[in-house]
Amino acid sequence: MEIRDLKVIAFDADDTLWQNEVFFREAEDRFAALMAPFMPKEESINVLFSNEMKHLRLYGYGIKGFMLSMVETAMDISKGSIGAEAIYEILEIGRRMMNKPVELLDDVESIFNRLNGRYRLILATKGDLIDQERKLYKSGLEKHFHHVEVMSEKKEDDYRKLIRHLDIEPHEFLMVGNSMKSDIIPVLNIGGKAIHIPHEITWQHEMVEDGHVVKASYHQFEKLSDILSVLS
Amino acid sequence: MEIRDLKVIAFDADDTLWQNEVFFREAEDRFAALMAPFMPKEESINVLFSNEMKHLRLYGYGIKGFMLSMVETAMDISKGSIGAEAIYEILEIGRRMMNKPVELLDDVESIFNRLNGRYRLILATKGDLIDQERKLYKSGLEKHFHHVEVMSEKKEDDYRKLIRHLDIEPHEFLMVGNSMKSDIIPVLNIGGKAIHIPHEITWQHEMVEDGHVVKASYHQFEKLSDILSVLS
Repeated sequence: MEIRDLKVIAFDADDTLWQNEVFFREAEDRFAALMAPFMPKEESINVLFSNEMKHLRLYGYGIKGFMLSMVETAMDISKGSIGAEAIYEILEIGRRMMNKPVELLDDVESIFNRLNGRYRLILATKGDLIDQERKLYKSGLEKHFHHVEVMSEKKEDDYRKLIRHLDIEPHEFLMVGNSMKSDIIPVLNIGGKAIHIPHEITWQHEMVEDGHVVKASYHQFEKLSDILSVLS
Repeated sequence: MEIRDLKVIAFDADDTLWQNEVFFREAEDRFAALMAPFMPKEESINVLFSNEMKHLRLYGYGIKGFMLSMVETAMDISKGSIGAEAIYEILEIGRRMMNKPVELLDDVESIFNRLNGRYRLILATKGDLIDQERKLYKSGLEKHFHHVEVMSEKKEDDYRKLIRHLDIEPHEFLMVGNSMKSDIIPVLNIGGKAIHIPHEITWQHEMVEDGHVVKASYHQFEKLSDILSVLS
C-alpha cells in the first residue's frame, strides 16, 4: 500500500472502534428465550433474521428496525398468542441496547492522536443516524473527526459520493474497518485503499461468500493499533 | 434581509419541499380506528403522542420510532388485550408510509433551476436517515443539492456545526422551512437568515409557545416559489 499520497483515513465505527455486534447477539439470545415456549432458540433467531432481511430495504440498519422485526417475529412464532408482557420486554431489549455505554476496542484515543494532523480523519459508518450519533457522543472521539458520515449503505456508489464530497481522489482515501463486504471490497473496487481489522463476531448479513475474489491488495491486521505500523 | 452576501440556501424537506405531516395524521387516524374498541379517538392520539415524546431522545424522529410508539401505545390502551391482527396492521401502517410516493409542494424543480449556479443549494432535514434518503431519491431533486445533511436535531449547535462544515459565516447562510421552532428561530439566533413558509398542518412537537420573541427579522411567504421575489 502506497501511503505517500494518502489524505483521508476513514474509520468504520461498529466493531472497528467499539463493540456492537455482541450487543445484538445478546439481544437475540434474550429474544429467543422469550420465544422458547413456542420454538427452539436457533430457529427463532433464524426467523428473526429472515424478517430483518425482508424489511432491510425499508427499515435500513440499526436498533429500531431490529426492534420492529423482533415484534413481528414474536407474532409470527407465537401465531399471535404472545402476551403483552413479552412485547413490552422486546421493546425494553431494544431500549437497553440504545442505553449501553460505548466500549472502545483498543486505545483509540492515542491511535487518533498519532494520526491526527498528518491525515484528515473521518468516521464513515452505516446505521441509524441517532444510534450512531449517540455512540459517537458517548465515545468521546468526536473531536478527532474532521467529518462524520452516517451512510444508509456502503456500496461502491456510496463511497464514490463520499470521496467526491471530501474533494479528493480515490487513491488518497483509506478505509479501515471490520467488514470485507462493506469496508474493504467496495473501496478497493473504486480505487481506494483499505485495511481490514477482522472482529471476532460478524453479522450473517456482512459475510462474504466463499470464493469472492478481491481485485486489489489490502492490509489485514489483528487490532486497530497495528495500523500505525504502516501509517507512521 | 440583506442577500448580497448570501452563499448557501438550505431547504428543509418535510412540509417545505414535500408533503409529510399529512401522512402521519392519516396514520394516526388509522391507528385510532384500531383503538376504537378501547378508547375514543382523540384520547388514543394523545396517549400515542405522549409515548412518542417519552422516547424521542432514544428513538429520534421518523417513521420507525413512530411505529414503535404505536405498538407500545396499543399495548397500553388495550391493557395488553390487543390482538395480533392489530399489531400486524400497525406495522403495515408504518410500511405504507415508507412506500408513499413523494408529493412536491410547489414547482420545486423550476425554483431550484432559477437559484442554482447563483447559490449553493443544500438540503437540511431532520429525521430518520433512510426515510429522508428514500424521499429525496423519489423526489428526483438530488441533482440540485451540493450537500445533503440529515440532522438528528435542528438546534443552534446543530446549525453552528453545519455552517462550519460548509466553510461559511452565519450571515452567508439562509434557511428556508416550515417550522419556526426548527428552521427559523435557531438560525436567526446564531446570526443566519431565514424564510418561513408555514404549512397548513404542524406537528404538535414543532409548535412554538405563544409569546416567544423572535430576536431578528425574517421573511414569511405563503408558498415556496415566493422566495424568488427576494432572491432573484
